Order: sequence, then C-alpha cells, then structure tokens
Amino acid sequence: MADLTQNKKDLAHARTKTSFDVASMTNYLYRGSGNVEQRRYIIDLIAREPIFNKDDWAWLNHTDAVKRGIAMSARLAEIKMENDLNDLDFATMVEAIDDTLPILLHNGAFIPVINAQGTDEQIDKWIPLAEKFQIIGCYAQTELGHGSNLSSLETTATFIKETDEWEIDSTTFTAAKWWIGGLGAMCTHAVVQAKLIIDGTDHGAHVFVVPIRSLEDHKPFSGIQVGDIGPKAYGGFNKMENGFARFNKYRIPRENMLMRFSKVSRDGVFTKPPHAKLSYGSMVLLRSVLIRQMALYLSRATTIATRYLTVRRQFNNPTQRNDADMNPGLETQVINYPMVQNRLFPLIASAYALFAAGSVMMDMYIGLLTDLSSGNIGALAEVHAMSSALKSYCTTIGAAGAEECRKLMGGHGYSYFTGLAHMFASIVPSNTYEGDNYVLTQQMARYLLKEVKTAKTEPEKVTPYSKYLLLATNRDAFSRATCAVVQPEDWLKPEVQLAAFEHRCARLAMELSDAVEAGGGLDDTNGKTWSDHNIECYRISHAHAQYVMVLWFIRSIRNAQNPDLDDEERTDPKAIQVLQKLSNLHALHTIQTNLADFAEDAYLSPRQCPSLRAQVKDVVASLADDAVGLVDAFDHPDFLLASALGASDGDAYKRLWDKAQTEPLNRKDVCDGYEEYIRPLLKKHGEIKL
Amino acid sequence: MADLTQNKKDLAHARTKTSFDVASMTNYLYRGSGNVEQRRYIIDLIAREPIFNKDDWAWLNHTDAVKRGIAMSARLAEIKMENDLNDLDFATMVEAIDDTLPILLHNGAFIPVINAQGTDEQIDKWIPLAEKFQIIGCYAQTELGHGSNLSSLETTATFIKETDEWEIDSTTFTAAKWWIGGLGAMCTHAVVQAKLIIDGTDHGAHVFVVPIRSLEDHKPFSGIQVGDIGPKAYGGFNKMENGFARFNKYRIPRENMLMRFSKVSRDGVFTKPPHAKLSYGSMVLLRSVLIRQMALYLSRATTIATRYLTVRRQFNNPTQRNDADMNPGLETQVINYPMVQNRLFPLIASAYALFAAGSVMMDMYIGLLTDLSSGNIGALAEVHAMSSALKSYCTTIGAAGAEECRKLMGGHGYSYFTGLAHMFASIVPSNTYEGDNYVLTQQMARYLLKEVKTAKTEPEKVTPYSKYLLLATNRDAFSRATCAVVQPEDWLKPEVQLAAFEHRCARLAMELSDAVEAGGGLDDTNGKTWSDHNIECYRISHAHAQYVMVLWFIRSIRNAQNPDLDDEERTDPKAIQVLQKLSNLHALHTIQTNLADFAEDAYLSPRQCPSLRAQVKDVVASLADDAVGLVDAFDHPDFLLASALGASDGDAYKRLWDKAQTEPLNRKDVCDGYEEYIRPLLKKHGEIKL
Repeated sequence: MADLTQNKKDLAHARTKTSFDVASMTNYLYRGSGNVEQRRYIIDLIAREPIFNKDDWAWLNHTDAVKRGIAMSARLAEIKMENDLNDLDFATMVEAIDDTLPILLHNGAFIPVINAQGTDEQIDKWIPLAEKFQIIGCYAQTELGHGSNLSSLETTATFIKETDEWEIDSTTFTAAKWWIGGLGAMCTHAVVQAKLIIDGTDHGAHVFVVPIRSLEDHKPFSGIQVGDIGPKAYGGFNKMENGFARFNKYRIPRENMLMRFSKVSRDGVFTKPPHAKLSYGSMVLLRSVLIRQMALYLSRATTIATRYLTVRRQFNNPTQRNDADMNPGLETQVINYPMVQNRLFPLIASAYALFAAGSVMMDMYIGLLTDLSSGNIGALAEVHAMSSALKSYCTTIGAAGAEECRKLMGGHGYSYFTGLAHMFASIVPSNTYEGDNYVLTQQMARYLLKEVKTAKTEPEKVTPYSKYLLLATNRDAFSRATCAVVQPEDWLKPEVQLAAFEHRCARLAMELSDAVEAGGGLDDTNGKTWSDHNIECYRISHAHAQYVMVLWFIRSIRNAQNPDLDDEERTDPKAIQVLQKLSNLHALHTIQTNLADFAEDAYLSPRQCPSLRAQVKDVVASLADDAVGLVDAFDHPDFLLASALGASDGDAYKRLWDKAQTEPLNRKDVCDGYEEYIRPLLKKHGEIKL
Repeated sequence: MADLTQNKKDLAHARTKTSFDVASMTNYLYRGSGNVEQRRYIIDLIAREPIFNKDDWAWLNHTDAVKRGIAMSARLAEIKMENDLNDLDFATMVEAIDDTLPILLHNGAFIPVINAQGTDEQIDKWIPLAEKFQIIGCYAQTELGHGSNLSSLETTATFIKETDEWEIDSTTFTAAKWWIGGLGAMCTHAVVQAKLIIDGTDHGAHVFVVPIRSLEDHKPFSGIQVGDIGPKAYGGFNKMENGFARFNKYRIPRENMLMRFSKVSRDGVFTKPPHAKLSYGSMVLLRSVLIRQMALYLSRATTIATRYLTVRRQFNNPTQRNDADMNPGLETQVINYPMVQNRLFPLIASAYALFAAGSVMMDMYIGLLTDLSSGNIGALAEVHAMSSALKSYCTTIGAAGAEECRKLMGGHGYSYFTGLAHMFASIVPSNTYEGDNYVLTQQMARYLLKEVKTAKTEPEKVTPYSKYLLLATNRDAFSRATCAVVQPEDWLKPEVQLAAFEHRCARLAMELSDAVEAGGGLDDTNGKTWSDHNIECYRISHAHAQYVMVLWFIRSIRNAQNPDLDDEERTDPKAIQVLQKLSNLHALHTIQTNLADFAEDAYLSPRQCPSLRAQVKDVVASLADDAVGLVDAFDHPDFLLASALGASDGDAYKRLWDKAQTEPLNRKDVCDGYEEYIRPLLKKHGEIKL
C-alpha cells in the first residue's frame, strides 16, 4: 500500500540536500532583504482578501470571469488608495493577483500617457481624477484593420473650428478600435489614437482623451458603439474585457487632445513636436517590465515542475538511486532521470539569468529617463534596440519555458490544477503585443548595422555592447578564428563562453551588413529590400540578446562577490558557487541549443562540439542536489503558485485529489443530460439484463 | 475609406495564381477521388445537424460543455447506427465534430480491447451490446499515482474462490483510476486494468469488464466512488468528462476478466499467455492514427493562417509588390513578407509530408496485422519502434506547428475566433498521452542498437529503414564522409538530401552504441545505465523519424507519377512539380532546423551551410504563388475550420466583427457589477462634473 506521506517526505528530504543558504539566494535575486520583505508584505495583502481567491477560476465562463475581474479591479484600486502604494507595489499586487484585470491599463497606460503627453494643465485636470479612480481609463490604439502600422490607423479626429471641437469618426468597422483592455465594460474614458485632420490635411496619429461612458449611469455615450471582442486563446485574459469601439462623428472639446508635443490652436494652427522620438521612453519601459515579468513567470513554472517531479515517482531504475534513507522498494523520483534534469535545470538557469537581465534592463531604462529629462537623447537608440531585442527573446523563452515545464509534468501536466496552463495562456500573448517578436528584431539589426559602419570609420565610438564588431575588423583573421577550448573544463571559463557569443554576433552582424550592401544598401528600392533580410535580423537580434543575457548574468554574480559590500548585502559564498554553475549551464546550454551558429563556420571543431554536450550534462548533474533549494529561493508563496502539484509542502497527490472533489459536475450522482440523451440511447433497442 | 470587399478580392485573386489543378492535388492527398467524396459526404452529415454547431463553444463552462458533449455523443452514436458507418467513417465524423466527446473511448478503446483480448464467448456477449450502445464503455488504465509504469498499478483484482468473483479494490486514493475519458459521467461500463491476485500471488496487470453505473437509473454502483477530475489545460477536452474511480472491495464475476490470452479457471488456476507482446498491435494502431491526425490538424492550421495572411495587409513595402491589378496605394499583404513565408511555407510542406507519412504508417500497421493474425511476429519490433518514433516526432511538430500558425496571425491570433486556440488545446496533450514523447523515443533507440549489432555480424539482415547503419561499417571512411553539394542547386537532388539524413542517423546511432558499450553495455548496473543515454535516444529517434518522413514524401511523389496508373488516378504533372518543391522545402528546412547535427562533425562545410540557407529561401519564394492553392487542396470546409479568419471566402474582418457582436457580454448596455463595484469606486470621493 502506498505511503501517503511519501510525497511530503520526498520534498522535505530534498531540501536537506541544499548546499547553500536559501534566504541569501533570495536576497540576491530581489536585490536585498528589504525588497524581499516588501514583496512578501504586498503579496500577503492580496492573499488575505477573499475576492482574490483563485479556487473557482477554472469554472468561470467569460461573462462570470469579467464580473469577477471588475470586482477584483475595484478592490485593487481601493487597496492602492488605502495603503497609498507606489507603482512598484502596484506591480507586485498584480503579480500576486496573477490575472489581467479590466483596470490594469488605467495605471499601466492611461495615466502614464497623459503624464507623458499632456500639458501641465491637462495633467492637473485629469491625473488627480484618475489617481482617485473618479474616472477609469484605458488606452485605445490598435484597430481591427491595423496593429503594427500606426501610420495607417483609420480612426480620424477632424477639427471643427466652428465649435472648437474634434469629431472622432470610424468610417468603417475596420477602423474600430479593437483589443482595448478595459474598454469592453469598465472604463469611463479612453486615450484614443486618431489621425488628426485640419482642413483636409492629415497630420498623422495623435492622442485624445475621449469620454466613453456616462459618469451618471455608465451607459456609453450616443455616437459610440462599444463592446467586448470575445474570448481569447487558451482561456487567457478571461477576466479582461478587451473591447472594441466605433465612433460615429462623436464630438469632444479641442482641449482633449494631449498637447505636450504637438499642438492645435483655437484657430486650427497645427504645431509639430520638437523631437519625434521623445515618446519612445514608454515603449522602453513596457518592454523592460516584460523581461522582469518573464523572470517571475519562469521562476514560478520551474518551482512547480521541480517540486512535483521531486515527489512523482515512476519506474524503478536501480542506478538512479534513491537516497540511502529511503525505502529501496520505492520507484525512482522522476527528477532523478537525466533526461528530465537536462530539460528542467536549463530552465531554472534561464530564470536566474532573466532576473539578472531584468535588473540591468530596468537600470538602463532609469538611466535613459534621467538622460531624456535633461534633453540628452544619446543613449536612446541603443536602449531602445536593447529593450526590443530582449523583449523579443525573453518573452519567447518565457512562454516556451512555461509550456516545457507543463509537459515535463507528464500526464497530470494537462490538468488545469497544475497552475501552469493559466500561466502559459497569460504569457504567450506577450510574444505578440508590445511589438511582435519577429518584427521587433529589426530594431536591434538596424542599430547594429549602424554600429558596423561606426566600427569601420570611428571604432572608438562603438558602444560597449557592440564592441564585438571590432573582432571582425580584420576579415581574414576573423574568418580563421576558432574557439580556445582544449580541455573539456575550458568550457567553464566565462571568457571562453563570452568569446564564443561575441564571435557569433560579430559574424552574423557582418554577414547581414555584407548582404545589405550587396543588395545595394537599404535605400536601393531596385535591389533587395529590408524585408528580404528579416530572417537574418531575427538571427542577429536573438544572438545579441543571448550574448548580453550571458554577460549580465556573469557580471551579476561578480557584483554579488564585491568585497566592498556590507555583510548583510553579501551573498553566501556557497550560493555564489551554485550561481556559477547556473551561469555555466545557462551559457553552455544556450550554445548547445544554437550550436549550428557556432559550428557552421568552423569556429567550433568536431572535437569541441561533443565536449560541449558532455559539459552540459556534467553541469546539469552537479545541480541535482540543489534543484529544490534553487526554486525555493524564488520565494513564491503557495497563494501565488495556485498549483495543486507545486505547493511548498509537496503533498501533490492529496491536493490533486481534493481539487477534483471540488469539480461542480461532481455535486450530482447522475449527470445532467442523462434523461434527455443517455437513457434514450441506452434503451433504443429495448431493455437488457446483465 | 477602406474597401470592405478587399479581403475577398485578395483571396480570390490569390487563387487565380495557382499553377496546378487543386482537385488533382486533393485526390493525391486523400489517395483517390472516392475517398475525397466519402470524406465530404461524412463531414456534411455532421455539419447538417444543429447539435454539432460550434458557434457558442467559447462561452461554455465545463459543466455546460460536458452536457453538450453528452448530447453530441448520443447523436453521434445514432448517426453511426442509422447509417451503418464503419470505423473510418466514424473517424471522419469525429474529425468533423472537432472535439473530444465522452463517447469516443467507447469505440476507440472499449470495443477494440474486448475484441482483442476477449474470448469468443466474451466477444459474443459484450460486443453486440456495445455496438448498439446498450452499454457505454471506457478504458481505465492510468491511476493518480501511475501512468507510464503499468507494472506498478495499485488497483487490485483479487480472486474470491468461494463466490467465483473478483474483488476490485483501490487501497488508497493514489490507486484511483484517473484521466479516464467517458468515466466521469457517461459510461456504464469500464475495461479496468488491475493487478490480478490469486492466493496472495500477484500475476501482474490484466483487464476486467467492470459495471460502473446502473442500467436502471445511471447511478454509480455501491462500492464505486466515481467523478470528473476537473478542467484541463487551455480549455482543452472541455466536453470530455475525464474521470476518476475508486473501488472499495467491489465484486464482479470471474468471467468478466478478459481471457483470450491469460486465463483463470474456476478453481483459481492462472495460465500465462503464449506471447507477451501480442497486445502491442493496438498501441501501433493508436500511434499510427495520431500521425494521420497531425496531418489533418496541421493542414487545417496552415489553411487558416495562409488565408488570413493573404487578406491581412500591413505597412506599404514598395518592393514586396502588390499585384499589378491591385490598387498601388494598398498596404502589402502580410503573406508577401519573406519572414512570414519562411515561417509558414515549411509548415505547409510539413503538413504534406505528414499526409504521406500517415499513409505509409497505416499501411505498415495493416501489414503487421496480417502478419500477426497468422502468428508471424517478425515485423513487430520494427513497426512498433517506427510507430513510436513517428508518434513522438509528428505530434511534437503538429502541436508546435499549430501554435506557430496562431502566432503568425499576429494580434488577432490571440482571439479564440481564429479556431487555432481550440486546436492547439486539443493537439498538445498528444505529446504526452499514448506514450510521453520523450520516454517513447527509447523504443526506436533500443531497436537501432540491436540493428547496429546485426549490421556488424549479419549485415544482410539489417532491415531496410536501418540500412544506413552499413555506411558506418568502415569507421575511418565514415568519419571523413562529406556532403556532395558543390553547386547550390545540388541541394535539390533527393539523393543528396537522403544521403545527409542517412549520414546523420548513422553517426548518431554509432555514437549511442559506442557510449552504451563504453558504459559496460545496457546490463551493467555498475556502469552507466540506460537512462544516462536517454538524451541521445531522443536525438537518434527524432533523426530517424525525420529521415523516413523525408524518404516517404519523396517516394509518395514518385508513386504518384507511376506511368502504370490510370488517367483518373494520375496526379496533374503541374501538381507534381509543386509537390517536388514542397518535398525539397521539407527536406532542406528540416536540415536547416537541425543544422548542428549535420555540421558539427564537418559533414557539411562552412560553404555548404550558407548555400543550404540560401536554397531554403529560394524554394520558399518559389512557392508564393501556390500557397493558397496548396491549402485549398487540403479540402477543409468552413464548418470544419470554424475560424472567423480562415474561412474560404476571405471575409476575415467582417466575420471577426460579426463574431464579436455575438459575445454574451454585449447583450447589456451596462455591465454586470456596475452597481456593486464600479459605481461605488467612482463615487468614493464624491460626485464630479466634467
């Protein structure tokens, strides 16, 4: 008979094998114990409120889910006001709630856009109302017919001089605003992107504050057709009422145009903004936040998978030994199979690398913000390209990693109760929004092409992260470059790893540059065009993202060893050792996964490739005893995981059994539909006796 | 103002560019016009019945969905009886219905298992009742605590000599049957796998027919706790009541054990079966069917994506020209971007290759069946290994391909109304069921290790698909082997492509064999064990699957050109030309995706790798005019696609708009929750006037 306490014993026992101080590791990840404490405090604030209970989510249809989303939104707003919470704490509340709510774009876009693009008077008018939720806003850009291509939006705002108003109009349904979170049911106002038209002249897309629903009774104003666009893939965004809106010659006052940059005077004179790219800052922020989110998501996914695979036992493999103090008759813990470790542990390493990348990217954004506020746009191009490349790469591996964790969990992985299905459904749209992950890679490629030119003409001006381009200055020597690995252990040297990534980036960038020039340059419309090079843009952009991810993870570990740090800030030396293993795994596994890029030009030799694969296996095996400790260090409470299989006590089977007992279908002995459908079928050919 | 007929014009215009006869291509895919006609007839049979309408699926919660599933099941059973349909037609009905129903395992497992493992008397007793749906069955193998490892199932069937009965028992909840489709609400009977115990001796897992619910009132019998296990990931299998069951010393008659192979006499004497592997046939069938299903799924997914991307326009790219007769002011059709073509067209090629593979695999199964029925098990090992390798590979690329199609559709791809979200949710569990896709690859690896031994000792006995192993007989010569490509066009030679796949398979198989021997062989429990080699098993198994997929597709096209065929059976020569392009794309793109495997041992040179990439781009570009024709040839009617964006008329935006208008939330002007949550929030700080 199965020992029903075995699951808990297995997880508890795995914890005893951890080689490092888990709390110290947590402090490293969240950059200090103060942040760890604050995060715990905020998550607990949410966990205590019944409205945020997640137990019945799986059974809500879209109608019920949106109503729940509205209730949760209102409470979220109240908690923010009651506790006077800042943006960071708000983000942590949203992390704890773990679903997209109708109100998210109010703080996430409506307020920031007005703050960024409104005049001081406009900010004074709208922001206090928004901060007190006396109005609720959303951000309406995408249309049914246009997403990426802003300049072809069809919604128009025509200046009506007689009444000093804008007439907002959607000529056809393809001009309908579409996908707008918060618009379907909850918002009272929207910031709307529309083509500004004066006297028949189109001045391009601008933003307008548009009242949508009456503050008296919440009914949409006459002249606006508004609603929910319907359910999303995989049950994702179920509580969000992504909406549509069509405007029929709908009038708003002239001053509802946000006029910090472009302006329109009372008599209809249009003034252009001083610099077209000043609004890029908010894109950089949104993309930087996504990288951090991927760290949080993938760390949750690996937490769930690691714990479940530690307690799940299947087959008795005599040499994948159970521990000495375990009953030898027990089957093997699934996490002890090398195949499982080689799929799972690189994802744990990725999660750690994502934490490091998220921190650096956020620091870069804050630096940029400081620059921009003093009118210095020198760093804008690089930071914008970097945030684009990383957004594309990190959200790709985030979504794929969460799904891989689910598959690692085998049959039970297909249950909703893993907690991972909900997660993938929430992550995967990030591969498309805030810039499609393929289209977005053109940003870094364009940036690097400029850097290639700089490398040729003014090598000292190449920015730090593009310095690898200088490797290729001597083309002959570069084409003969090979990897320095002689002994297998050489793979563990950070400089060897970084050299490989730099070589690959330099080669791909030069190949792209050569191809573009051979096609007559980017401006030659008779030759090859930019879009002919987009496959190569994707390759170099992801290669660059992988390079900086590896670099930043290595640096982050070095920084954690800084002898100048206070005792309290210093990371446990044993934790550092494990971090170094993770960093090696992250670097080497990334090379292995993209091996052709390193081998096809003979940079790696036929001897080095198998030695790389062997090193990856060795590093993976060396992490086995620390796997549970490493995911515990992510510090995700059970409320956040919302997983029957990944809870901290390891009692997976019991929790899965208990969850099934809560299934509404099980309230009845005989199912709905028996009398109507089953019985007539069974009795069609008469009664039988068995 | 946007031309609302443009979508339809675009798709219609694309069709005019097709270079081949679409009907002839359809006949090639379905192996003859008779099959095409029959498939259309059966799909129409389903499409005509209101109960199978898919319009409201997105809004059903699990409770309502299961009731719908039961209603659909009953009607499906009736249609089968009314029209006296065979298994193939039944499969087509299920394809048309496009969801898993509570009744599917009745025909899919309950009946086949009784037919395969029951005595003639047992077949005579149960099958007529089942064929007339006087009983409804399911198949209960997996338990909460055990999936893959059959020998550790915990459910017991203990022989009670006194009463000539079996006592079925689940000692703990980990012994509960779990994931059993049809068990949660609908079935009256289950075929249950349980450990057979006589006088304290455990004779291993055997199958028993177990009454679950009363034929009088459908109530579960006393001694059985039964219910639904809860919702599944991504909203998949929503109409299926995957169930659990726990037995508490539940008695059934001795003759309910299926006794074709093992037997137990009245006085409790157990007799073993003559051959342990005779039951493998049904596994081969299920896996072979899955390959065919992946062809159908991926062809649907590419149909939807290709049509939508043909009508979707975004940005105006001057040299990705619109056709001459189009308005030059129009934006570029998204399908004209090379990046999009290079992601989409390889998936179309994969779908075609899957059709070929599905046919060959099914023929192999039928051949095996004939062999087995005459007691010849000679082919069993190879066919079993092949079906395992292909199931693992094909369901992996099927699920990933459907998801890639969804992502290709950009923002709107995240709408439920693409039809692709439902599809991925239905496909992806196939990566785990019928053998986890990682675990399953061990079958082909084990088979090939035996073939390596045969190649060394009796080379003439190596089976045809493993003949590549003979390449490596001379290890020295083999290690110096290189790819024969000199001119880029050489990549288009099938013999060059096949040689590359053969070389790679031979290398990986020899490396695995060497590693296993170096570890002391598989039986040495002191050395490396089998599970240490499982990563390499996965590599060689997928490599082998890719090799036969490429080979079978090439052969299938050659067969279609057989001069002995009747006019009616012969495929249009222009269709053959396009098939050859698809075959080239399939082979070369597969090499490109796995390039490291071909380059890391220097089989491919640093010159050949870029020429391969260039060839892939060229072949992709050469297929642009035929993309819509190629997916039209899959012959999937709109009812089956159930997609607002992929319908045959191209009217994507209009359909998406119309679908949104059917969203239940939109029936009200003011949303549920306004009075309760939104109004109090808005008014918390008093009334405002704007």
